[in-house]
Amino acid sequence: MVYLDYNNSTPVDKRVLDVMIPVFTERFGSPTSPNRAGNQAKQLVEDARIPIARAVGMDPHDVIFHTNRDAANKFAIVGAGMKQPNHPEIVYGITEHRSVTETCFIAACGGKGACTPAMVNSLGFVDVDNFEDIIHDGQYVMVSISLANQVTGIINPIKQLAKVAHQHGLLVHCDASPALGKLPFSAKELGVDMVTVDSGLIYGPKGCAALVANREARRSIQKAFPGRGDYADMDSHDSVLNVPGIVGFGKACEVAVRDSLADMPRQQTLCNNFEDMMLKNIEDMMIFGQNSDRLPNTSCMIIDGVAAKDLVVNTPKLDFSYEDTQPATQFDADHTITAMGYMPKTAMGTFTVSLGRDTSNEDIDEMLDQFVV
Amino acid sequence: MVYLDYNNSTPVDKRVLDVMIPVFTERFGSPTSPNRAGNQAKQLVEDARIPIARAVGMDPHDVIFHTNRDAANKFAIVGAGMKQPNHPEIVYGITEHRSVTETCFIAACGGKGACTPAMVNSLGFVDVDNFEDIIHDGQYVMVSISLANQVTGIINPIKQLAKVAHQHGLLVHCDASPALGKLPFSAKELGVDMVTVDSGLIYGPKGCAALVANREARRSIQKAFPGRGDYADMDSHDSVLNVPGIVGFGKACEVAVRDSLADMPRQQTLCNNFEDMMLKNIEDMMIFGQNSDRLPNTSCMIIDGVAAKDLVVNTPKLDFSYEDTQPATQFDADHTITAMGYMPKTAMGTFTVSLGRDTSNEDIDEMLDQFVV
Repeated sequence: MVYLDYNNSTPVDKRVLDVMIPVFTERFGSPTSPNRAGNQAKQLVEDARIPIARAVGMDPHDVIFHTNRDAANKFAIVGAGMKQPNHPEIVYGITEHRSVTETCFIAACGGKGACTPAMVNSLGFVDVDNFEDIIHDGQYVMVSISLANQVTGIINPIKQLAKVAHQHGLLVHCDASPALGKLPFSAKELGVDMVTVDSGLIYGPKGCAALVANREARRSIQKAFPGRGDYADMDSHDSVLNVPGIVGFGKACEVAVRDSLADMPRQQTLCNNFEDMMLKNIEDMMIFGQNSDRLPNTSCMIIDGVAAKDLVVNTPKLDFSYEDTQPATQFDADHTITAMGYMPKTAMGTFTVSLGRDTSNEDIDEMLDQFVV
Repeated sequence: MVYLDYNNSTPVDKRVLDVMIPVFTERFGSPTSPNRAGNQAKQLVEDARIPIARAVGMDPHDVIFHTNRDAANKFAIVGAGMKQPNHPEIVYGITEHRSVTETCFIAACGGKGACTPAMVNSLGFVDVDNFEDIIHDGQYVMVSISLANQVTGIINPIKQLAKVAHQHGLLVHCDASPALGKLPFSAKELGVDMVTVDSGLIYGPKGCAALVANREARRSIQKAFPGRGDYADMDSHDSVLNVPGIVGFGKACEVAVRDSLADMPRQQTLCNNFEDMMLKNIEDMMIFGQNSDRLPNTSCMIIDGVAAKDLVVNTPKLDFSYEDTQPATQFDADHTITAMGYMPKTAMGTFTVSLGRDTSNEDIDEMLDQFVV
């Protein structure tokens, strides 16, 4: 079998697992307990903030732990929306992850506010001019746009978008979980106030994520979740933190992200070769955002007239990603693809191949063997 | 060091860790991906429901995964409160965990309803007659009362309370996370509709918990969280599930709970000996709920005139549990103790010793050495 779904799940790095095991079995105290074992656990959590913050170019006390990407996104949006609690107006990228789009809708409407999608152009990214027009017309408090899309790999011009947003006083949230380890970035340099990252996508354990939020963003979050103090008190749910997971997450940010980034030129080459061969050998196939800035490991494609579901049957040795559900209406189809201007039928044919550190030349050969009949 | 805080955190059982490791490194697919790796992950999640359901005496499709006890409790209360969305009235045990009391307050008031605490008697448990009086006077939709209290170990008469609640048409939620593995029980037999259990308290990994909810409870939850289907769709946050954690949680329910229960007579003996020695050798000390039904591993005490914080300084080799914060008002003091009729000052002196499978005779000797000066 060839695993080609690294944008959805990664194996845990051996070095990450090695640091987790003693936390499972020996240093297992609860960080909420005021005793030696508890203090030790608390210290492990504090130490993990450092590499996580460094990986995204922010400060250790900016790190707020959550259990997964969805929870971190929701926390960011509800929190930042409270900058203007009576009438929160929120902008979000139309191709964002469901945890963003749904939360924007709930946060804005629950607070009797409004939320507006920022459309993408046919290349798949949020257009800066179009974005500026939207912002200009509203009284928005925040925007949520990802650094890169996990389905297509297409990269948004976040730095320019953030600049426009800040000129109008918006807080900027960026879901960077599909981008971390594939694209070097610094949130401070991009001008982003809040970044979501997820351990399960960077060769760390599942069940751990973080919202990394600067002081201004945290001030707004504190209004939304009263009773919480500064950063440490904001960690998810006030419950016993998943200490071994957090320790693994920290290690993944330290070693796995670095190694993954270093491996990107190799994955880019594999991806390019694969795309060239596919385009040369298969008629009527298309790569989404082919000429856009994309994550080096990601290729999102369609073979005309072939539903992704049927393609799977013909490629039994490949594990790639596609939208599984039969859409009842066009709104149910993969919104990333329809937002780029394609028909729901096209969305149903779309599939994504995403490579990782363990993807070999042989894997690519096998993949081509399966696809190029 | 002697670890005496098993009610707050347990080490991960070796057999549990052994089944998790291949899921971290090899069977690492995302259960949301419609490919072979994803299906394998989905199957692992399905398989884990079986031992979890069995451990609490319910059915595998009753299991709804959450990231921790707090999240499961919140989900239960918000979900069941929606039985009557315009005016949810909720009853909760006054000594419940903060995740219960706070959620009851928010769920009831957010929905313009009401929430009423069920008081405990001086022995520390919710009195059935008193409970019946409360229920009789209100139009309640649900009650949330734990099986056993984690601070004092005191066991509530859940079967009788549930019977009364059902006679008045209430849904019954029971946080059984401190009781599982210490007290054999079956939710069906107790007449409980929803049970919370947490992996991190039963020699499983932190970061995994479940709300186990019967069909009637799930029907109400579906109203609260529309768009979710039946059980599998209710799993926390729609996000990528923590598959290795869930696999470990399942194994912990299978082996660790069984072994822990089997070890209870031994822990009970250790606990009895320890309490006898303390009472004999230390003047003016008291054990909370001494004559109540209690978890066999738990002892909650106070030495008159000694703040728990100072006691810690004098027992540097012991890791036990106490309330760390200096209460600003009496409402800030540990509510478990004040609810039993004690003054806030008493709450500040209270500390809990909770034993576990690894607690040895030597540990108890060491503990007595430290306490009995």
